Amino acid sequence: MKENIVYVGSKPVMNYCTAVLQVMSEYDSVKLMARGNAISVAVDVAEVTRNRFLTDLKVDNIEIGTEELESDTGETRNVSNIAITLTK
Amino acid sequence: MKENIVYVGSKPVMNYCTAVLQVMSEYDSVKLMARGNAISVAVDVAEVTRNRFLTDLKVDNIEIGTEELESDTGETRNVSNIAITLTK
Repeated sequence: MKENIVYVGSKPVMNYCTAVLQVMSEYDSVKLMARGNAISVAVDVAEVTRNRFLTDLKVDNIEIGTEELESDTGETRNVSNIAITLTK
Repeated sequence: MKENIVYVGSKPVMNYCTAVLQVMSEYDSVKLMARGNAISVAVDVAEVTRNRFLTDLKVDNIEIGTEELESDTGETRNVSNIAITLTK
């Protein structure tokens, strides 16, 4: 089953905008997910997509949270995340 | 008049957590505002404050937007921003 989730990392903003446009050609909503420094990129992706490409897109919901990540050495550290849902 | 807004920039997360705790000693809510790369820091501040210091604090609202910033050379560029409202 295809998912309407786009995981945002450290690539250029436009790469993820393209992914969002692809998802939105098949779905009525898309969920942008990111953690750590990529949170800023996810917000950029949402804003650029809404301002330049799909101006009828609305920010439906934004959630923030914390997850524990384990490093190679077995140490755990807390990382913040964000989930931005955009809807037609 | 004192404001219940904390502007988040590039300082360590704990500096802003301290500012949030100060605001919350006088108000029932606080608004974290950030733009650009500091957006990730603002989410960290919200999460660390909620998980470690004020566990009864709830994320009341999150808004994202775009603003035009003018550089010294007169060029304008778009920068994303976030406003996270935390409430008792």
